[in-house]
Amino acid sequence: MYFYMPTKVFCEKNCVMNHKEELCGLGSKAFIITGRHSSKKNGSLQDVRTALEEMGVPYLVFDEIEENPSVETVMKARQTGLDAGADFVIGIGGGSPLDAAKAIALMMKHPGENGEFLYRKGSDEAYPVAAVPTTCGTGSEATPWAILTRHELRIKGSISHKIFPALALSDPGYLRSAPSSVLVSTSVDAMGHCIESYINTNATDYTRMLCEKSLSLWSKGKEVLLGKREAEEEDLQNMMNASTLAGMAISHTGTSLPHGLSYYLTYEEGVPHGRAVGIFQAPYMAAADEAVRGQVLDKMDFQDMDEFKHFMDELLGRIEIPAHIQERAVREMLQNHAKLVNCPYPVDEVVLKNFF
Amino acid sequence: MYFYMPTKVFCEKNCVMNHKEELCGLGSKAFIITGRHSSKKNGSLQDVRTALEEMGVPYLVFDEIEENPSVETVMKARQTGLDAGADFVIGIGGGSPLDAAKAIALMMKHPGENGEFLYRKGSDEAYPVAAVPTTCGTGSEATPWAILTRHELRIKGSISHKIFPALALSDPGYLRSAPSSVLVSTSVDAMGHCIESYINTNATDYTRMLCEKSLSLWSKGKEVLLGKREAEEEDLQNMMNASTLAGMAISHTGTSLPHGLSYYLTYEEGVPHGRAVGIFQAPYMAAADEAVRGQVLDKMDFQDMDEFKHFMDELLGRIEIPAHIQERAVREMLQNHAKLVNCPYPVDEVVLKNFF
Ligand SMILES: [Zn+2]
Ligand SMILES: [Zn+2]
Repeated sequence: MYFYMPTKVFCEKNCVMNHKEELCGLGSKAFIITGRHSSKKNGSLQDVRTALEEMGVPYLVFDEIEENPSVETVMKARQTGLDAGADFVIGIGGGSPLDAAKAIALMMKHPGENGEFLYRKGSDEAYPVAAVPTTCGTGSEATPWAILTRHELRIKGSISHKIFPALALSDPGYLRSAPSSVLVSTSVDAMGHCIESYINTNATDYTRMLCEKSLSLWSKGKEVLLGKREAEEEDLQNMMNASTLAGMAISHTGTSLPHGLSYYLTYEEGVPHGRAVGIFQAPYMAAADEAVRGQVLDKMDFQDMDEFKHFMDELLGRIEIPAHIQERAVREMLQNHAKLVNCPYPVDEVVLKNFF
Repeated sequence: MYFYMPTKVFCEKNCVMNHKEELCGLGSKAFIITGRHSSKKNGSLQDVRTALEEMGVPYLVFDEIEENPSVETVMKARQTGLDAGADFVIGIGGGSPLDAAKAIALMMKHPGENGEFLYRKGSDEAYPVAAVPTTCGTGSEATPWAILTRHELRIKGSISHKIFPALALSDPGYLRSAPSSVLVSTSVDAMGHCIESYINTNATDYTRMLCEKSLSLWSKGKEVLLGKREAEEEDLQNMMNASTLAGMAISHTGTSLPHGLSYYLTYEEGVPHGRAVGIFQAPYMAAADEAVRGQVLDKMDFQDMDEFKHFMDELLGRIEIPAHIQERAVREMLQNHAKLVNCPYPVDEVVLKNFF
């Protein structure tokens, strides 16, 4: 049983400005990694710029991270960062820029290596990374994982190196401008992290503690997700904390079958990560030990599996998955040792087919 | 709201041997800090020796840490460690050697400073510390605090520097040989950490999570503490985890009035730390917000304050505190800003007198 969470996490309104000294303590020239749009809209990029400028720390911005970033994008950004002489990396946005920031910080520290290094065991040394999440799903600010798209394998997968951000600055205010579809998808992702971490061979008292608190906080926002009431400040804070805590949980346990299966839907059909993960949660739970399932339902404040399924259907709707993708997903999942060993019950073709 | 817990914690049977590579990764020559007796009796010192020897890492042992270690002892050990050229420190035992190990690692890193440096703001740089707890109370393996006795002030107090152990190796098996009085006193200390952290102005969702899990685990061992049944393996594991989680909680919140008051009893009357802390928990709770108090009682699995008080009386018995010590404790506590600001209700002389 172990616990390891070296990231220093601040979660509060205005926390980028409140902790600009900590941020600027990470290095002398910042390399900001973000996507094209949302970090401009929600104010996070401007906050980071202002913080760096007030502290007199030079920086440059790479804002070309796509949804589901590829190894190619990481390698392009690496070169830009090296050319500029940056010595720390700030990821701003959802899981995509945060995961990319980790991979870029790793590759910048190993300028002689090519992209294959990402998926090969080796030194985990990287430039310091700060994470500024603007969604409440991946928990990437508190995990060592970096999920990239590998076009040569037609799939997504975490790199082979573990890079914890040194610092996470989570301002729930950035969620305010997120479209409700993004709030739903990312919140479902956080919930899925807890379910897959709780129903997991690696679960311990430490990780169950993280999941229980995360799911309790998550459950307070169910009506917001369903659009039945507006999000208050406190809801956004709860959603952000739920996501970060879930990230801490999967840092220890990893995820399991739903995440493994979801990547095919995202890669082949473009289904957003949270939604792709969400549709597999009910079958993942249904096949699990009844007592453990009951604990998960209790923390989420659902009476039983029926109520949970009903909620998920209302939230996500139905997704049609073409038969050939189902078949590929089942076939390849049966070879995916990492996800299979995390699942506490036996998995075969029949079990997996029931997920669809 | 923040979360910071950089210590890598392993908690399991045989964890010193299981993680000897991690231990030996901290440096090239180890300085072992321990007390005279218990680490020899419970096998922890031998395990650390064996781990270092199997890895070919040289070491020396300083086994002169007294109960409630003094600044003088720390300074003596610092010189021994420097003379030997050690570059990392391993504390083995209860809170005393663990706290001393942190202070020694700090002072070794600052060889030009004298003992006053301990209680002066300044660099927190220290040699890496590994903590091997053999009691289940202080949680020192997961805090940055180091409580030393300051004879010139006739009191105990934490040094001004924050030193987190890099590594904590908690083997619940070491509790097996602890006298039941030590198990009681240290378990009560851990419980007190949770109560003072939960009823605290610095409490957050993160720290409440840690306290809730800690108290739940703690509550499973109540009958063991009362001597009504033997401790099983699982009880010892629960007690160790409860203590470590409580340490993580007070790392964020600090402790409050009971700890502040307890130091006078320990310094002047030699009352063991846990017992001294324990007698103030009921009055600290009684004066707190009813809802918060109810949550604490619920997690400890007590119906009400009466049941809690009854349990504590049965466990600790009565302690007579001379009037002049009560008066000094009340007078000085009213000047103890650090402990007062942590308390969520107003504190004056009348409130404090009610604690006795
Ligand atoms: Zn996910
Ligand atoms: Zn204590």
